[in-house]
Amino acid sequence: MQAINLANKFSLFTELWSPKIIAEVNDFHVKIGKLKGEFVWHHHEKEDELFLVIKGVLTIRLRDKDLVLHEGELAVIPKGLEHCPYAPQEVYLLMFEPKTTLNTGADTNDRTVDPEWI
Amino acid sequence: MQAINLANKFSLFTELWSPKIIAEVNDFHVKIGKLKGEFVWHHHEKEDELFLVIKGVLTIRLRDKDLVLHEGELAVIPKGLEHCPYAPQEVYLLMFEPKTTLNTGADTNDRTVDPEWI
Repeated sequence: MQAINLANKFSLFTELWSPKIIAEVNDFHVKIGKLKGEFVWHHHEKEDELFLVIKGVLTIRLRDKDLVLHEGELAVIPKGLEHCPYAPQEVYLLMFEPKTTLNTGADTNDRTVDPEWI
Repeated sequence: MQAINLANKFSLFTELWSPKIIAEVNDFHVKIGKLKGEFVWHHHEKEDELFLVIKGVLTIRLRDKDLVLHEGELAVIPKGLEHCPYAPQEVYLLMFEPKTTLNTGADTNDRTVDPEWI
């Protein structure tokens, strides 16, 4: 067991939209990701998903509104709710979600990734 | 659903060693707390516990070493492991842990609190 430094972990990769696992807490994973541009609309059948913005400004598009998260802000997207992350500029994001969570939710497509530990 | 601003949430209370719930993610709670001084030695029977330091420097005393967490650093204390948080200066802390987690772990004593939503 050791301290996990977020800035150090973010320095280890450059790929966008490719979450990396940095810790586990019971049946949950802590992941970090770098985002820029628009993702795909999706929802998760069973998993709530927490987004905490470490750097930048993240828009989470919902069907009825946009939710804007600045640095130091978080939101939980409840299971079942369609959402589409959008980052006009690069965002560093921390996620907390069940280990079963797929980045593209209930769909598998060309944006689906199998997250690796970093 | 809305953005949860950490700085705003920390401004709403002053009590030390009294975690506040700010979000839920499936069967987990996101809590924040202000710490200063030394807590009590304890462990959790079933719950891993994630600590992310938002401000300050937190020492987590373990039986065989001290784990020091600076701002932007996190650690997961696995279930069963005795630990004792210690903060020489005030620390702002974010925690992810199962909803069943008691702040004093497997023991109930005068430091035990029933966390409230903030």
